[in-house]
Amino acid sequence: MTQLTQTRERRRRADGERSHATILRGATELATLEGLEGLSIAGLADHIGMSKSGLYAHFGSKEELQLATIEKAEEIFDREVTRPALEQPEGLPRVLGMSDAYLSYLERRVFPGGCFFAAAGAEFATREGRVQQKLQEFAAEGMRALAETIRDAQARDQVDREIDADQLAFEIDALLHGANAGFLLSGDREPLERARRAIRDRLGISGS
Amino acid sequence: MTQLTQTRERRRRADGERSHATILRGATELATLEGLEGLSIAGLADHIGMSKSGLYAHFGSKEELQLATIEKAEEIFDREVTRPALEQPEGLPRVLGMSDAYLSYLERRVFPGGCFFAAAGAEFATREGRVQQKLQEFAAEGMRALAETIRDAQARDQVDREIDADQLAFEIDALLHGANAGFLLSGDREPLERARRAIRDRLGISGS
Repeated sequence: MTQLTQTRERRRRADGERSHATILRGATELATLEGLEGLSIAGLADHIGMSKSGLYAHFGSKEELQLATIEKAEEIFDREVTRPALEQPEGLPRVLGMSDAYLSYLERRVFPGGCFFAAAGAEFATREGRVQQKLQEFAAEGMRALAETIRDAQARDQVDREIDADQLAFEIDALLHGANAGFLLSGDREPLERARRAIRDRLGISGS
Repeated sequence: MTQLTQTRERRRRADGERSHATILRGATELATLEGLEGLSIAGLADHIGMSKSGLYAHFGSKEELQLATIEKAEEIFDREVTRPALEQPEGLPRVLGMSDAYLSYLERRVFPGGCFFAAAGAEFATREGRVQQKLQEFAAEGMRALAETIRDAQARDQVDREIDADQLAFEIDALLHGANAGFLLSGDREPLERARRAIRDRLGISGS
């Protein structure tokens, strides 16, 4: 390969990758607005101004497109919620870090239709197949991580050891989802603030 | 009008009404499975085994069908949740009655895809128009009624008067929605039991 063809090849690949990333970013946005099932190749082509045939070259089927979209959304969630939380010290600060990062992700409207996983999870709850399974695993994993972090805070005597960590994880998760639903419906910050307060109260932190 | 034509007219009307109710019951079921936006006249005709033209005679447009479906769902919710709760004495028993009736409505799978209003509310949160407005009003009214019932329990010294009733209503609503999401996703009763426990705990009732 000459240097010129190598450069061309690199440029082509970079274009392909950029374009793939751009397509999937558009897909995650559209999915929170129109639903993941409403995410047709035709509709997405319209949304991002690309030809249908061009999109088919990237994704062979609607299910492949949906799975790739979920992977992209996981990557965004990881960057916007999981990693900032992991920057907090282990134990109680990390429990708070998880819920605060999630509330911030809602408030900054990372996805225009609220939490990607709340929207897609509700939509696919009664469906079957690989898409539903992937969403279910993500939700279960999030709940497990939250319960584990609470247990860690209990081991450090930062949270009452008498509390059932799985029960508390369920409650915090429900409050965060309530914040998402309320914020979306009203456009008002109040539900975010209410969830923040309720979570601190549950963790035995008062008045902050 | 002869007696015979009167009888025929009555029968025709009764058939029409029965059929209207049957159509809408089918529409509420389909909406929780496929989404309220996915509720096309063609899809519903398929689901209930009726001709498209027959359905058009009932509903002139998709929006009219959606609005009539929400009204039918309100009627079902009223029968399954609101009325059983109102049979409880005023104050704390009625707060518990509201949340227990809701959890029972989930457990009995009154709608195959979980709570009709949680599903449709999530789906239409970012849309605009009469359908979204109707769903928003239903949610706001439910939250107001819950807060009012909590205040009533506080006035009777059955719930700590120091608690912010609107905050508590938000928390109970979030826990009920968390129960819906968890029960749908897992098919397991555990999230219903967790919500029930958390709500009693918040209301200062322990160990039941």
